[in-house]
Amino acid sequence: MQHVSSFAKGLWVPAGAGAREVADAATGQVIALAGNENLDVEGMIGYAREVGGPALRAMDFHDRARMLKALALHLNANKQALYDLSFTTGATQADHGFDVDGGIGTLFVFASKGRREMPEGHVLLDGGFESLGRTGAFGGQHIYTPRLGVALHINAFNFPVWGMLEKIAPALLAGVASIVKPATATCHVTELCVRLMLDAGVLPDGALQLICGGVGDGLSHLGPQDAVTFTGSAATAEVVQNALPRGVPFTAEQDSLNASIMGTDVTAESPEFDLMVKEVVREMTTKAGQKCTAIRRVLVPQPLLQPLIERLSSQLSGLVVGDPRDKATRMGPVVSASQRDDVLEKAALIGTEAECVFEGEHGMDRGAFFSPKLFHCADPDGAEAVHGTEAFGPVSTVMGYRDLGHAVALANKGQGSLVASLFTHDSDVARDVALGIGAWHGRVYINDRDTGREATGHGAPMPHLTHGGPGRAGGGEELGGIRAVKHYMHRVAVQGSPSMISAVTGRWVPGASKVEAKPHPFTLKFGDLALGRTLRTEARTITLEDVETFARFTGDTFYAHMDEDAAKRNPFFPGRVAHGYLILSFAAGLFVEPAEGPVLANTGLDNLRFLKPVVPGDSITVDLTVMDRKSRNEDYGEVRWHAAVSNQDGEAVAEYELLTMVAK
Amino acid sequence: MQHVSSFAKGLWVPAGAGAREVADAATGQVIALAGNENLDVEGMIGYAREVGGPALRAMDFHDRARMLKALALHLNANKQALYDLSFTTGATQADHGFDVDGGIGTLFVFASKGRREMPEGHVLLDGGFESLGRTGAFGGQHIYTPRLGVALHINAFNFPVWGMLEKIAPALLAGVASIVKPATATCHVTELCVRLMLDAGVLPDGALQLICGGVGDGLSHLGPQDAVTFTGSAATAEVVQNALPRGVPFTAEQDSLNASIMGTDVTAESPEFDLMVKEVVREMTTKAGQKCTAIRRVLVPQPLLQPLIERLSSQLSGLVVGDPRDKATRMGPVVSASQRDDVLEKAALIGTEAECVFEGEHGMDRGAFFSPKLFHCADPDGAEAVHGTEAFGPVSTVMGYRDLGHAVALANKGQGSLVASLFTHDSDVARDVALGIGAWHGRVYINDRDTGREATGHGAPMPHLTHGGPGRAGGGEELGGIRAVKHYMHRVAVQGSPSMISAVTGRWVPGASKVEAKPHPFTLKFGDLALGRTLRTEARTITLEDVETFARFTGDTFYAHMDEDAAKRNPFFPGRVAHGYLILSFAAGLFVEPAEGPVLANTGLDNLRFLKPVVPGDSITVDLTVMDRKSRNEDYGEVRWHAAVSNQDGEAVAEYELLTMVAK
Repeated sequence: MQHVSSFAKGLWVPAGAGAREVADAATGQVIALAGNENLDVEGMIGYAREVGGPALRAMDFHDRARMLKALALHLNANKQALYDLSFTTGATQADHGFDVDGGIGTLFVFASKGRREMPEGHVLLDGGFESLGRTGAFGGQHIYTPRLGVALHINAFNFPVWGMLEKIAPALLAGVASIVKPATATCHVTELCVRLMLDAGVLPDGALQLICGGVGDGLSHLGPQDAVTFTGSAATAEVVQNALPRGVPFTAEQDSLNASIMGTDVTAESPEFDLMVKEVVREMTTKAGQKCTAIRRVLVPQPLLQPLIERLSSQLSGLVVGDPRDKATRMGPVVSASQRDDVLEKAALIGTEAECVFEGEHGMDRGAFFSPKLFHCADPDGAEAVHGTEAFGPVSTVMGYRDLGHAVALANKGQGSLVASLFTHDSDVARDVALGIGAWHGRVYINDRDTGREATGHGAPMPHLTHGGPGRAGGGEELGGIRAVKHYMHRVAVQGSPSMISAVTGRWVPGASKVEAKPHPFTLKFGDLALGRTLRTEARTITLEDVETFARFTGDTFYAHMDEDAAKRNPFFPGRVAHGYLILSFAAGLFVEPAEGPVLANTGLDNLRFLKPVVPGDSITVDLTVMDRKSRNEDYGEVRWHAAVSNQDGEAVAEYELLTMVAK
Repeated sequence: MQHVSSFAKGLWVPAGAGAREVADAATGQVIALAGNENLDVEGMIGYAREVGGPALRAMDFHDRARMLKALALHLNANKQALYDLSFTTGATQADHGFDVDGGIGTLFVFASKGRREMPEGHVLLDGGFESLGRTGAFGGQHIYTPRLGVALHINAFNFPVWGMLEKIAPALLAGVASIVKPATATCHVTELCVRLMLDAGVLPDGALQLICGGVGDGLSHLGPQDAVTFTGSAATAEVVQNALPRGVPFTAEQDSLNASIMGTDVTAESPEFDLMVKEVVREMTTKAGQKCTAIRRVLVPQPLLQPLIERLSSQLSGLVVGDPRDKATRMGPVVSASQRDDVLEKAALIGTEAECVFEGEHGMDRGAFFSPKLFHCADPDGAEAVHGTEAFGPVSTVMGYRDLGHAVALANKGQGSLVASLFTHDSDVARDVALGIGAWHGRVYINDRDTGREATGHGAPMPHLTHGGPGRAGGGEELGGIRAVKHYMHRVAVQGSPSMISAVTGRWVPGASKVEAKPHPFTLKFGDLALGRTLRTEARTITLEDVETFARFTGDTFYAHMDEDAAKRNPFFPGRVAHGYLILSFAAGLFVEPAEGPVLANTGLDNLRFLKPVVPGDSITVDLTVMDRKSRNEDYGEVRWHAAVSNQDGEAVAEYELLTMVAK
């Protein structure tokens, strides 16, 4: 008998007073005890705030991203242990792919996005510098700064690994310490995962704590700098929210009656028909239907109702239900006997509005097995339970619809869902449905014959995309790449002079003070290129002959460069003007240091705007200033330069940001 | 006696059963009756959802932005009427600048940002297309789509015009109909403003409704597609939130004990000392201190405590308090006798922890006059009331601090504020304070001698920047440009093939289907350039002579182009390579149509990335595809093209987005 421990204030605290039994889903045998009424949850919150948070915030975004990668690598090397233990929850090897591998994959994605999409610093910029006056002497910049509290993650039983990792990844990346409270039924798996992560030796003390069992009065000690994320039933979400002091940010991901819609363009012979059949069967049976994103409602054009029911029934009848450890098994039991009873009860409620058109034959004589049930609801407009009762198992209801507007209305009758899928090969159908149901859904998944094996599946929340839905689904948002990191940060508008803004953000802003100094900045290594370091070039006069030479040489004989009369007719030009690319090329000729040195390559250019035409006789100068730096590896890093091209009167003619790789 | 009306379901409904009296702030005389218990609030909600919302959503973002501009212009032409009536609320002409002109200015900013920063369509993109597979056949795109409900704005008494306009501007721009419920004490001014806006004749039926008086059981009829914004006291916020069904988005802007901090670098002779004195006095006295952003706590290095108190007292003693209609008056009364009593009570509470070091001499014998009170708190660490009691009038407390860490800790003792200001000329002080207090503040305002007259003021929420603070300040966010519009929209992740994503968003994505057709797209007018229309150019071989010619001509003799050995030592290049600007210039030579035609100018370029070096002997081709269009005026619009440059092996060598102006 395993005594599942909590991890509190740097110590493992085994199950104790008031512990509950945890049973193997397939056999019903008690395998563990979890919970301890004497756990000092208030102390854990303080430890996360005062020890874990500050340690994380002493690291920068890239440090934390590297930490996530190390965790992912360590878990990946030890995942067999997680697989082995996860079988006790009823999960098959294929189910582990979602929970264990899906969780580790999420860590990898956040590690990668943290390095690629976040600065090598402590604050995240939101939008650009916004000038608030005529001369630009004063302006504003929004930044995200880490919350100073703790993230408490209250998770559901169905994904003991992914459920934890998808929440702690963005929180840790933000610089916020996490306390994870898994559902007791599968907390032994979460405990193992936490032990493995601590073994990796990269988490600062206090960055991650674990509560197996109840939280006691812990919620009452939270405040506005903390964040609570919840996954589970609407009823429990309400209990949690009511126990929180007002002003504590709370995000819920709860019930969801996800729909899958067959487009009006689909026939029984279309590839999309087959794709949808496969998806519905997969969504009903993966994790024995215990997925918040599973397809609960199947919307199909009326004429295809019977063909679809037949195909689904045929596929379901071939399903092998059994011991999750058995390789032939396609579906294991649900997590517990009480969960099975709950699904039965909910299915019975759906049965009052819909006819059961297929029922699996697997007995329910031992463990927590539950055979698939497919319903058909003939009056979807009048029905309520089929749109509002989540039977959290292999249960789904098919409904016919009249036209696309009817399909949209039925999907939205879910009153807020995590995801809806649409099978169509018609882009008009895709647009009408996506825009019709968008406001009631967290994710809209469109699939057709063109996406092939790259389609990620109706039920799979991707780390890159937001996960969560409005209304009944809880109204929250998780994942979505760096969007999720922002949920653990606070957005604040900073106002000041460009120099002050640059000092706060660590990114040089046009208008901030510049430092002109020898030697040429292209002779300096990555580490020596201080923000604001500026090269002001000599001037170069552009002649009509330059314009003609450039035109002949490049082939760009656009009339605005070649034909004085036509150029004059153009609303933007006073007459023949220099090519934009000529200005860029001459600018480079002015600022480039030709000798071999630390600058390795020009890798790109952003936000180029031509501000004023350059006419023959004008002479241009460039100010090239270090804006930002970002290390890539041990050998070199990316330097972003601001290039301001002006004419002989000091007027800006072009502005852009130049990207270069510079050796260290 | 004015009978203030509500505007419900397209009709004006005058004050009736249960109406309350509204008095002139300066005289105490009753001037109006407001409120009607029989108002059909449930019907108004339905009308907004079913009539106003759909009408707004039939317009695109630019249509709605033009509508806001028309409203702003009409109000601006009629603002004298608003000034005249606003005097009855105790506001001076200078105060009108904040409420009336500030409100109209906010409309103008949203009108302008809606045109410049939003697409000419119905959904707003959030981030770019995210490929979810190896080939890019399947990916995701986040979009914002308008909520399908109503926005109910419950406003405070202090800004009857700005308070309404700053909330309805983003809601209307999003496509969500608004119901405004102003505070009864000043709702007669809001009523007039609504009448003027309706007179402008640009608001669709049902887009704007007004509740003067109570909302009855209205809140209970709201749902998850609706949004409630609240400005007022924390106590009322809690009442409102508790009356809402669970899952209705609720944003509060409530109590806030805003601090102003003098930097450790400042002396009594610094320009920043003078700037801070001016700001504190202005913030105490504008709107008689009835501003949620007003400075309530003044934090100053201990040695400057006495000099600052002396300067503030001296300035305050010269203040002319009186009839708001009198041009000599610098401060009018607070809004009502009951508000005056409330301020008195709160000031008394502060007085238990702080000594009153200045008190104005204006009597309180008539109307709702209240003279400024300046306190000094000698024990700011032990005090609670000075950090937690908002005396909503001309009341402020000065506190000395030991060092910058102490100043940060004291500012954060406000437990969440809308704004803190900092007066410093030292960028290290600016960074340390901004990052130290950022997570507890909605806005950090840094001022020094360099910002001159462009500094917008501690207390002025700018339409461009977010307004709202964490914790005690309510935890909400308003304004912030297009960020505010997103609060009335729902973010949904759409997955599918690039073609399906393009159909949903109305913006072509690389990988989506292309249409290659004659004639050359540069010969087509703006309206004829369909998304996906593509020009595939001839190929052009780049010779070593081309590279040398380009180098000599432009002056760009960077070693990677000129020195085979040095180029080979570079980690990115196989040997001498073509200039990036040569590739861009030759690409233009390939795709440009030289004859005079609808394409007017190349205005810019975004997201250029060089993907693979081009070596002499390579030959390049360009695919130029219409990505997006945005009308600018009646004569022309901006067309965004995707340029993909590939080599003879079909490998991508460069990718970018090109901006052009094209005639209609």
